[in-house]
Amino acid sequence: VPPPPPRRRARACGLEFGSIPTGSHNAITDVPGVRVGHVTLWKDPDSDGNGAVARTGVTAIVLDDVSEMFRRPMAAGVAVLNGAGELTGSIEMREWGILETPIVLVSTNNVGRAYDAVVDAVLESGIDDVVIPVVGECDDSSLDDVRARSLSVAHVREALETAADGAVAEGVVGAGCGMITMGHKAGIGTASRVVGTGTVGVMLLCNFGGARLLRVGGMVVGPRLGDSAPPLDTGGSCIGVVVTDVSLDARQLERVARRVGLGLARLGSVAHHGSGDIFCAVSTANRVDRDARGTRTVTVLADAELSDIFTAVVDATEEAVTNALFVADTVIGRDGFVAEGLPVDQILEWLGLAP
Amino acid sequence: VPPPPPRRRARACGLEFGSIPTGSHNAITDVPGVRVGHVTLWKDPDSDGNGAVARTGVTAIVLDDVSEMFRRPMAAGVAVLNGAGELTGSIEMREWGILETPIVLVSTNNVGRAYDAVVDAVLESGIDDVVIPVVGECDDSSLDDVRARSLSVAHVREALETAADGAVAEGVVGAGCGMITMGHKAGIGTASRVVGTGTVGVMLLCNFGGARLLRVGGMVVGPRLGDSAPPLDTGGSCIGVVVTDVSLDARQLERVARRVGLGLARLGSVAHHGSGDIFCAVSTANRVDRDARGTRTVTVLADAELSDIFTAVVDATEEAVTNALFVADTVIGRDGFVAEGLPVDQILEWLGLAP
Amino acid sequence: VPPPPPRRRARACGLEFGSIPTGSHNAITDVPGVRVGHVTLWKDPDSDGNGAVARTGVTAIVLDDVSEMFRRPMAAGVAVLNGAGELTGSIEMREWGILETPIVLVSTNNVGRAYDAVVDAVLESGIDDVVIPVVGECDDSSLDDVRARSLSVAHVREALETAADGAVAEGVVGAGCGMITMGHKAGIGTASRVVGTGTVGVMLLCNFGGARLLRVGGMVVGPRLGDSAPPLDTGGSCIGVVVTDVSLDARQLERVARRVGLGLARLGSVAHHGSGDIFCAVSTANRVDRDARGTRTVTVLADAELSDIFTAVVDATEEAVTNALFVADTVIGRDGFVAEGLPVDQILEWLGLAP
Amino acid sequence: VPPPPPRRRARACGLEFGSIPTGSHNAITDVPGVRVGHVTLWKDPDSDGNGAVARTGVTAIVLDDVSEMFRRPMAAGVAVLNGAGELTGSIEMREWGILETPIVLVSTNNVGRAYDAVVDAVLESGIDDVVIPVVGECDDSSLDDVRARSLSVAHVREALETAADGAVAEGVVGAGCGMITMGHKAGIGTASRVVGTGTVGVMLLCNFGGARLLRVGGMVVGPRLGDSAPPLDTGGSCIGVVVTDVSLDARQLERVARRVGLGLARLGSVAHHGSGDIFCAVSTANRVDRDARGTRTVTVLADAELSDIFTAVVDATEEAVTNALFVADTVIGRDGFVAEGLPVDQILEWLGLAP
Repeated sequence: VPPPPPRRRARACGLEFGSIPTGSHNAITDVPGVRVGHVTLWKDPDSDGNGAVARTGVTAIVLDDVSEMFRRPMAAGVAVLNGAGELTGSIEMREWGILETPIVLVSTNNVGRAYDAVVDAVLESGIDDVVIPVVGECDDSSLDDVRARSLSVAHVREALETAADGAVAEGVVGAGCGMITMGHKAGIGTASRVVGTGTVGVMLLCNFGGARLLRVGGMVVGPRLGDSAPPLDTGGSCIGVVVTDVSLDARQLERVARRVGLGLARLGSVAHHGSGDIFCAVSTANRVDRDARGTRTVTVLADAELSDIFTAVVDATEEAVTNALFVADTVIGRDGFVAEGLPVDQILEWLGLAP
Repeated sequence: VPPPPPRRRARACGLEFGSIPTGSHNAITDVPGVRVGHVTLWKDPDSDGNGAVARTGVTAIVLDDVSEMFRRPMAAGVAVLNGAGELTGSIEMREWGILETPIVLVSTNNVGRAYDAVVDAVLESGIDDVVIPVVGECDDSSLDDVRARSLSVAHVREALETAADGAVAEGVVGAGCGMITMGHKAGIGTASRVVGTGTVGVMLLCNFGGARLLRVGGMVVGPRLGDSAPPLDTGGSCIGVVVTDVSLDARQLERVARRVGLGLARLGSVAHHGSGDIFCAVSTANRVDRDARGTRTVTVLADAELSDIFTAVVDATEEAVTNALFVADTVIGRDGFVAEGLPVDQILEWLGLAP
Repeated sequence: VPPPPPRRRARACGLEFGSIPTGSHNAITDVPGVRVGHVTLWKDPDSDGNGAVARTGVTAIVLDDVSEMFRRPMAAGVAVLNGAGELTGSIEMREWGILETPIVLVSTNNVGRAYDAVVDAVLESGIDDVVIPVVGECDDSSLDDVRARSLSVAHVREALETAADGAVAEGVVGAGCGMITMGHKAGIGTASRVVGTGTVGVMLLCNFGGARLLRVGGMVVGPRLGDSAPPLDTGGSCIGVVVTDVSLDARQLERVARRVGLGLARLGSVAHHGSGDIFCAVSTANRVDRDARGTRTVTVLADAELSDIFTAVVDATEEAVTNALFVADTVIGRDGFVAEGLPVDQILEWLGLAP
Repeated sequence: VPPPPPRRRARACGLEFGSIPTGSHNAITDVPGVRVGHVTLWKDPDSDGNGAVARTGVTAIVLDDVSEMFRRPMAAGVAVLNGAGELTGSIEMREWGILETPIVLVSTNNVGRAYDAVVDAVLESGIDDVVIPVVGECDDSSLDDVRARSLSVAHVREALETAADGAVAEGVVGAGCGMITMGHKAGIGTASRVVGTGTVGVMLLCNFGGARLLRVGGMVVGPRLGDSAPPLDTGGSCIGVVVTDVSLDARQLERVARRVGLGLARLGSVAHHGSGDIFCAVSTANRVDRDARGTRTVTVLADAELSDIFTAVVDATEEAVTNALFVADTVIGRDGFVAEGLPVDQILEWLGLAP
């Protein structure tokens, strides 16, 4: 059984998410220079029942060539809404205020391999130094046989190398293959906004929350969806990445990253105990030469202008999660576990939108 | 002109906020031992135009006698969503994980006087020591003549001394007199929830956000309310206080406090640049003797049970803010500035609820 | 009995603190524009035994006219080593990365009055707005009758208005009157360093630690000083202020502030449970117009250059604390409590320095 | 050339570090149940010059069987003095307040492999779940050919499996093979203290600071050691691990972890820009059943008792670093780079101790 084909994005179904215009692909790749690579791992046992179930993968967000990223890191900030998860490199990001590698998303048990793969990639690019990659994770163990550890270092390298600009696949793809959100199949979601001063893109690996609390387009739909909701305290998580070409500094980017959580709240998330809701934000316009000495001059946005960017991030986050839920159709995984796709037509009807 | 009389609370208008039952008053005072005191300062110039406009006041949340609070502080935690504001005592609360005084809410320029009043109260209670009070603030300078500084130390003492249990006045009362939220008159709001293990109460001083983003009952109503919305980047803030009789420790209470922000997000807040969104959470069931030595035994909730409390906090926060908006009617303040009450009937109609 | 006259500073006694040169006064006022004001409150009962003992005061660090500070705040950062204390305004400093008022130091119970005095000063300077002052405290209740509350708002205003550049009084002066450090009388200490890129000044209100752990000039002297040491877990605290005219941003200044704690460690501090060791750092060269919109261009030091500034801060902090201990002579306070001055001659002998 | 044999520990040379007694091995293994495993990787090119130089390794701190650690994690806290480094799992440690795996120390580029090895170990122990290991790193690239990546997953497993109690090898061993501190060869150091309530053990991977600032036994020796000091802003780091059988909760353990930095300061560290000074603290006496529901009763030390533990941590940290410097002799590494051993005899003479 192959992965389910993607369904329509939320906006194509008539939903709106605020008044700020989107970028041309309504994706993180609308920020110039940003590329995304997915490698999907999708396996079933053979006819004799041998072999593991794979519903996992890797997604890479590549902001520049790995050697250039290392030599001229970008200003970055990190925020944690609920820290039951991992984003490696977060300590350095907070201290130095920079991102120096691609950002790689995988399932929890594969963080080490993704980390190792990025180290390899940096060394092979000609850097003779040590590096601390940024790898985020969510737990896909309901659908994926995480003990089988299907992901290899080579898969991560492939995601890095095939990263491309333009439209971005969402839902059941890359690291999103085994992810579940608000009780329904989800995975990768993205959106973008064009503010006066540049473009803001978000990409999320969505794996959080319980069905009873779900809100779509603002409407509280969870209770109407019935009793199939899994309990709130299962595993879960959401890694959120914001990229912008507005020139912001590290302190501002931490503030921007913090807003992703407010977007999750619009879907009904209460950031339950087991959720690793961890976010980072990066400015492609504020780069810091690793070997810089003396002083440097940097142009940054006035803080008073940040509210528009905050609104863009919250709106785009709400849309990205809704995209992940709308695009991802039902997946059957490990031990026959079924993650139902969101009943989109039903919800559109409730919202007064023609299915 | 006296303050406008309170209007109906949100639940009395037919709105629902999640499935968890409320306490008997649906107020922070449903947590045993919690008392609230309001002193409202409401003055207009005399017929000759002399005298300042006062649209301010003080609200005190009293959890025990001041001497008892000091001798046996309660476990507490603090969280900052956007820190453009002040909650004194937050550094000690984070380090020692306790609350040792009442919590007092005032307008920004009056923090020092509230602080001083609590010191007086503690010393007069027989404590011969130094004390760090917890005072939170929002900026009511659109409606109140903040230069006139109408609030005195005596007003704060009065709020402490008149604090009572039972039903709590909301909206245009106490520290809420001059506050504005999501473009409309607001102020004090409260709500409570009964979870399996105890009661969770919240009280908020609501003064945040812009009208264009307003959501009520989940529905996005801001754009339909027209162009009267003030810009997002005006002053603002929300101080949120959570109190529970569930026995939680300081680490857990910090996590609980953090959830208040998710409740604000349900109203549409993006925590704009100028907002001081600062929250604390206190457990009346986990007290620490100031003079304790050796070891102590404490019963705490398992972390895995926290998700229900998180849900209670987010639901109650959403309801408390909605209460502040529903109860508070239009106020005319300093320089004729008008803070319109939320057009509740219109919104109820949009929500399909009979006005 | 008047306050004891100041004794010699540590450097005048032959001690050295690293290899970086000092500024001309070896004081925080070596940073251009920085002024310091002390008001000392020193009272004893009359011959009939009536009246309280005052061993307290206020110290103001003024970086510009109050209206100019408010209109064009300076970049700032804050760090907490042990948070059993208070520095008001720290939440805003962390979020906005700025300082917008003078910094005032008082004893714990007087924070509210100092806060109120700064609000008055800002309003009287013509600012029609709300303001969040920065007030730090240590606990002088061993020597001062803190229940008598000798400090008034007017005393704080006087410290602000009499602040001057040039040499700075240390030891038993201003807010330092009642402070005790490492078991000996201490109080105010200051020092400065000239690095390649500018001047770094520190001022500390020293009130921390126990005698058994004391190190002077690196040498472990505590155990040789005998058994008079008070227990470690008494009250205590150290507020540390770093000011520089090197252009640093808020993230860098937080890192700078964090280094003050390493200077305290050189004196033997373990940041005991009851200590409020709270530090801030400010750059007079990086100012942010409150009304700024659009973008601004800022020149900041490359991070790789920070290590020299870190060294300057740690060295200057060690020297400032040592100054506080060397300059402050024995004080007898409330209830006859004696805070012995450090036996400087004995220590100089141990260090091989001629007394 | 094999690794240099260990030299004498600091205490064996006559140095003292405070008045609190040590445990029987004066090592982290004095805390019951704690085991340490080292695997040293030491290779030179063959006679034809082929092959890489390896001066690296892995050190594992094992607190219980991996499956038991996962099922019943220990209370833990984390603190960052300067975050230019990595300790994976720190986000979860901060949120949940627990440690659920062994702690593994490696060089920077090998973090991913160590992470992967621990995941393997946990899965093989019978856990069918996802896991977030705790792996810390320092940069040994001055001595080790980090591009050759000599460490494999198998080496990490070997360190986990051979971990033993009793005396612990220090200096040039395990992860310490290529580490340099305060300008001299260092590596692994450990020490312990017995306080009234239990045992406190520390282990550090020491790789920080510059020679000019070095203090030993309190005495400032850096400037007397001459000009061979490397510049301060080279790479560096210190991962510090505190383990105790005193029952502390997560908030207290974060406070304990923060004190490690004060111990580094006693050696002269200013936590330079490039240093990853990251610390964690764990209580073996406060375990949290992963599947716990309802409430649990925990016995914790009164906060007022913490000062003794803080003193123990700072003293033991100072001793552990001094041990790392005293024990490690000169190492020649990659490209002929020489990391000189500390001239111990010279320093003992300066300290008035017989060599």
